[in-house]
Amino acid sequence: MTTESSARTIMERCDILGSFSEEPDRLTRRFATPAMRQANETVAGWMRAAGMSVRQDPIGNLIGRYEADSTDTINRGPTTILPGSHLDSVLDAGKYDGPLGVLTALACVERLHERQQHLPFAIEVFGFADEEGLRYHTAYLGSKVVAGIFDPNALHLVDSDGISMAEAIRTFGGDPSAIPGAKRRSDDLLGYCEVHIEQGPVLESLNLPVGVVSTITGQNRISVSFVGEAGHAGTVPMSMRHDSLCAAAEFILAVETLARNQPGLVATVGQITAQPGASNVIPGVVTLSLDVRHQDDAMREQACHRLEEQARQIATARQVSLKWQHLQESRTVPCATHLTQLLAQAIETLKYPVHTLSSGAGHDGVALSDLTSVAMLFVRCRGGVSHNPAESVTREDVAVAIEVLEQFLMLLAKEQGES
Amino acid sequence: MTTESSARTIMERCDILGSFSEEPDRLTRRFATPAMRQANETVAGWMRAAGMSVRQDPIGNLIGRYEADSTDTINRGPTTILPGSHLDSVLDAGKYDGPLGVLTALACVERLHERQQHLPFAIEVFGFADEEGLRYHTAYLGSKVVAGIFDPNALHLVDSDGISMAEAIRTFGGDPSAIPGAKRRSDDLLGYCEVHIEQGPVLESLNLPVGVVSTITGQNRISVSFVGEAGHAGTVPMSMRHDSLCAAAEFILAVETLARNQPGLVATVGQITAQPGASNVIPGVVTLSLDVRHQDDAMREQACHRLEEQARQIATARQVSLKWQHLQESRTVPCATHLTQLLAQAIETLKYPVHTLSSGAGHDGVALSDLTSVAMLFVRCRGGVSHNPAESVTREDVAVAIEVLEQFLMLLAKEQGES
Repeated sequence: MTTESSARTIMERCDILGSFSEEPDRLTRRFATPAMRQANETVAGWMRAAGMSVRQDPIGNLIGRYEADSTDTINRGPTTILPGSHLDSVLDAGKYDGPLGVLTALACVERLHERQQHLPFAIEVFGFADEEGLRYHTAYLGSKVVAGIFDPNALHLVDSDGISMAEAIRTFGGDPSAIPGAKRRSDDLLGYCEVHIEQGPVLESLNLPVGVVSTITGQNRISVSFVGEAGHAGTVPMSMRHDSLCAAAEFILAVETLARNQPGLVATVGQITAQPGASNVIPGVVTLSLDVRHQDDAMREQACHRLEEQARQIATARQVSLKWQHLQESRTVPCATHLTQLLAQAIETLKYPVHTLSSGAGHDGVALSDLTSVAMLFVRCRGGVSHNPAESVTREDVAVAIEVLEQFLMLLAKEQGES
Repeated sequence: MTTESSARTIMERCDILGSFSEEPDRLTRRFATPAMRQANETVAGWMRAAGMSVRQDPIGNLIGRYEADSTDTINRGPTTILPGSHLDSVLDAGKYDGPLGVLTALACVERLHERQQHLPFAIEVFGFADEEGLRYHTAYLGSKVVAGIFDPNALHLVDSDGISMAEAIRTFGGDPSAIPGAKRRSDDLLGYCEVHIEQGPVLESLNLPVGVVSTITGQNRISVSFVGEAGHAGTVPMSMRHDSLCAAAEFILAVETLARNQPGLVATVGQITAQPGASNVIPGVVTLSLDVRHQDDAMREQACHRLEEQARQIATARQVSLKWQHLQESRTVPCATHLTQLLAQAIETLKYPVHTLSSGAGHDGVALSDLTSVAMLFVRCRGGVSHNPAESVTREDVAVAIEVLEQFLMLLAKEQGES
């Protein structure tokens, strides 16, 4: 099997997984939905065909295990490397964000299996059940369970249909009560290594197929509400209004202005609702989401403080009230030096230039960094576009990613053999 | 029956109708819903008890007819006055916007019936099925049918559940195909007279229970979409974004600024949706509603042109595209001089000062002005608040409204007797 044919298989499989959606005309695959079940079952089939034993953990993560060389475990305990990524998606998603990493790891195992080769360590390919957090406005549910940092209070969250997370997990065939026991032991782990599309424009601008990630940028997710006064759109004079949507509009522009003026900062309002939400009624309550990221944790925290201050000023000036609720915060996570060096060495061995870059997007490595060493390989994507059906990678670049991950495993195997 | 006890009955009935809602914790009663059916059936019962014959027309308007004095029709054809208002509501509505007008008209008939009195004309009390237009983003569906200006294309509109208007009407017991025949003949009509809460702060500031309406302000309803580019909230640098929500925010503030700076203009963005609508995705498409009103039609049209121009400038500067769609336009409607004078005379007879004011809100009289003369009596409401559960009127003011409408009918009867 050439890497080209493996890459072709990955492209075809991304198409197949891209067809498993909750919506007829676009790709939306939330945690623990029938579409996720289709994805898990399909990938499980491919895993089994590659000689892996397959299980689904209590939250619905798919895990395929390819055993270590059995002749090689006499003098030390078995060790395991965890390559993987996630199988859920955002709303109206592209096909590669997540699945590419699961399928590249799977391709490496397939190639080992074809050669009847086992390494001095086991390989557990992870397909995480929820990284995007779309259904419950969370993140990293899957990897948090594996890392043992899942907050059981999250089980009481309800989705837009009123279904609690605990109920969704049970319907999906999982077991909320078994979640604490699903934490992976760390003492036999060599680390977690994820292949993922860059989701940014850097590799494309440098004309490079892949790059090594140095850090995963920290982020805040905040829920912001302005509470003004609903009223009739035709009869309340402009001077007497307390229009919560006008307050929100001012805030949205303040967010944009701050982020534009501070290098490295990105800040986004991605969701907004205005209530009561009729064309002839002045909005009484507007709720919006705020997403703030910076590689430097202090700069990010400062930006959040500054934005809260600005929101308060806007609310005070307009005599509306403000609710500012921190939903989630993650610090910037540095990738593990040693694994990152091995990735770089793999790229060099294959005669590609090594470029190191930080990840503006969050990844499962953020949660898994609590458990083990993490490393990431980025693959160039067209126009830096992701979270969008226009998301695109080339087969040629995917072939490079397979080669790099395979080489990384070989270098790791060599080290382990020597240890 | 004293007017005080009639007013008390109206307050109780507004409470009862306020409990007929599509939603458990707030009042939302859209066109042709089970909640509207409850309202129609309940009011129909009260009408019958007041000696009226009751029917529902093909779109679902409730009509109670109290006959003219049968001894008085020898020398001329029967004539009819139409008092009424609407029985549908906005989202999260108050209890008085609409029902108060229907119930005040009904109270006058009850008081005539109690005295076994008939006037030289018939009284048809109308409870219009749709004035607010919440379900299909239209307005005056009920009164347009009566006026014969209903656009049959509207029957193909679908609501948020995908139910077409034609289907909704049939489910409600109406008959879309019979709508053209439901136009009221105008040759026997004396006019339409509506009692309604002011929905503004003028009468309260003047300490007056009621006021006479001079004109109903014209308005535009426009749908505005900004189409940018969705993308990952963490990886697309601020400088490369085409964020449709930021464009919308700029426009919302432009709308507010224009309206604040132009006396008599009110402009409102009441609805907004951002797609795909996830906290970690830059909004690709934002759609919002724009409502523009001014007593002077030319000023209103000028404001709409200016806002469209500003929306285009914002879109161009941000390299997003703009969709500007006129949904509805109504010109300012002057109330009929003679009926308005009779209302003023009725107020004077009752020793209240006469105050004349224009209506910033649209009313069924806009559509009915195509059919017959229209007049309106406003009732003071607390804080000018409407389209809001805090909507409030006093029983004392309602008693005054009953007295004025009753006196208006008597003055009209006197005129008819003399003619």
